Amino acid sequence: MKKLINDPGDFIRESLAGLIRAHAGLVMMNADPLFVYRADAPVRGKVAIVSGGGSGHEPLHTGYVGPGMLDAACPGEVFTSPTPDQMLAAAKQVDGGSGVLFIVKNYSGDIMNFEMAAEMASAEGIAVASVIIDDDVAVNDSLYTQGRRGVGTTVLAEKICGAAADQGSSLSELVALCRRVSSAGRSMGVALSSCTVPAAGEPTFTLEEGEMEFGIGIHGEPGRERIKLKKADQITELMAEAIIKDPQYVRTLQEWDREATAPVERQVSDPPFAKGDPVLLFVNGMGGTPLSELYLVFRKAAAEAEKHGLRILRSLVGNYITSLEMQGFSLTLLRMDDQMLSLWDAPVLTPALRWGR
Amino acid sequence: MKKLINDPGDFIRESLAGLIRAHAGLVMMNADPLFVYRADAPVRGKVAIVSGGGSGHEPLHTGYVGPGMLDAACPGEVFTSPTPDQMLAAAKQVDGGSGVLFIVKNYSGDIMNFEMAAEMASAEGIAVASVIIDDDVAVNDSLYTQGRRGVGTTVLAEKICGAAADQGSSLSELVALCRRVSSAGRSMGVALSSCTVPAAGEPTFTLEEGEMEFGIGIHGEPGRERIKLKKADQITELMAEAIIKDPQYVRTLQEWDREATAPVERQVSDPPFAKGDPVLLFVNGMGGTPLSELYLVFRKAAAEAEKHGLRILRSLVGNYITSLEMQGFSLTLLRMDDQMLSLWDAPVLTPALRWGR
Repeated sequence: MKKLINDPGDFIRESLAGLIRAHAGLVMMNADPLFVYRADAPVRGKVAIVSGGGSGHEPLHTGYVGPGMLDAACPGEVFTSPTPDQMLAAAKQVDGGSGVLFIVKNYSGDIMNFEMAAEMASAEGIAVASVIIDDDVAVNDSLYTQGRRGVGTTVLAEKICGAAADQGSSLSELVALCRRVSSAGRSMGVALSSCTVPAAGEPTFTLEEGEMEFGIGIHGEPGRERIKLKKADQITELMAEAIIKDPQYVRTLQEWDREATAPVERQVSDPPFAKGDPVLLFVNGMGGTPLSELYLVFRKAAAEAEKHGLRILRSLVGNYITSLEMQGFSLTLLRMDDQMLSLWDAPVLTPALRWGR
Repeated sequence: MKKLINDPGDFIRESLAGLIRAHAGLVMMNADPLFVYRADAPVRGKVAIVSGGGSGHEPLHTGYVGPGMLDAACPGEVFTSPTPDQMLAAAKQVDGGSGVLFIVKNYSGDIMNFEMAAEMASAEGIAVASVIIDDDVAVNDSLYTQGRRGVGTTVLAEKICGAAADQGSSLSELVALCRRVSSAGRSMGVALSSCTVPAAGEPTFTLEEGEMEFGIGIHGEPGRERIKLKKADQITELMAEAIIKDPQYVRTLQEWDREATAPVERQVSDPPFAKGDPVLLFVNGMGGTPLSELYLVFRKAAAEAEKHGLRILRSLVGNYITSLEMQGFSLTLLRMDDQMLSLWDAPVLTPALRWGR
């Protein structure tokens, strides 16, 4: 695997240096502890939204910092959780006096570290609440994860909640909204090739010619099964089925918020998609798949969604939550409501998502 | 090479079907002859801009159709010129009574076919002018091309001229502007891997582990030389040098316009970049390179440009003119003036480039 890097140990910082240079005036970087934040932060009176996670999924999360989306993002090493001191420092930098929402993908390391950061921030008088995204229907419990993994819905939650924060929603309103988005989103991914973590130098896993991993995780975690490579339409049909017919799923997650900094158990029972539901359909590239193929997949995914009676009101196609140079894609369906629609359409100005400003 | 396709013969049409489905209301497709056009075309009184070329470079050109950029794009088979009947039909569809500008990348097939289409359109009473983009400093004359190849500057020319057309520029003003952009842009690319044309099923060329092609063309045409893979900073430095120190280059191109439908010879002598010049710096991914690596390259490219005294006023980083799933990138520097700056910043609303609307 060839890479456009220098020393693997410098990869993340050099990449972020490029990001903030290319988008000077929009985003800034704090070098130690490492985080990226809105150049105009803190925004007085606005709830700040902070996310983060392992690097290697760009543009997630650093590419989503800016007006209408995140106030800060904390990048860890490649496929490795950031540390609580990064999250704490980011929260302190962007807190505008109305509290901070952490949006956390469901991986054990991220959960643990964001939880610790929330406790430390609370101890320093910053109101913090966290919402966990766990939308991957592929497997329950996985390498790195208890329960379902957090994937594509994270991008949508960051956009929708970012818009709500922009429009003055309170921390508790944002928590409720973000939970609603997380509950209404379902995703699944496939890999046609592995990816190579720069520091490792070897592919994370091996796929033979003619093979694919059905239900891949964004760090190369095993999915449901390794199957024969199929035609794009067959793959897409299988994935749409898996997502749309996802059975009632009872989630038990550790959550915490301002009132209860100690984790609280939450049980959510979500109905799968029903006929007539308005949805956003998101076809996401894993990093090494051409846009032309993603649109080809979108065509079939849209037809499948409609076959099941869903109404596609919005769409997103491109590389938004990736796994370095992995070939493959993920599908995400998000059941929309009027508020979510209006927030999705609201202006956003970030390095990777930009419209209406 | 694995691909997310069905029958290779259906690849382009199925991909375009996804594009127009995902961006319904914004772009439409004419099935036969094949072209993509603005849903609100023709725009009365506005000069229409039409581009096109072989498929496989997405989002170029079909992803740039929409208000503030192209009125129509004609996609050929993968890496194959579209036909004159596509271009003629597109011109007739989008002509708003003020003429049509063809923006043509310098490849012999494209030149020939757009020229034929321009003649046919003129014969039908549509005012057509064409401008050729030939910004690739890598080699002079190449597989498929007499003179320099047209690459990254094409994206910038389409955006800038699209904005000018939006603001009411006449056809002759647009020709002058587009020539100015083409003359002020310089590009070069490298490949770390080949790509595979779906219908061929085999990689276009072979690169050994540890090798790269310096000066690659967007169809896999040979560049200046095949060299040992270097660190990203070394590669970027070599490319920035090649672009910035591009010697005085006298271009002799066939051009044609409304007044002279027969090709006319044009000689342009462009000074290379000079100290203090304001520029747009564009780091473009070839399709299979992660965004994180493109930003890492941008960081070094920006430093190199500044070392040579250039002032980077605008930037663009991402996959904008690709070669299917090829790994690699291209650098483009465009010398800006005040008019170009203002047109670059103007609102645009297309599937792949969107801001301010």
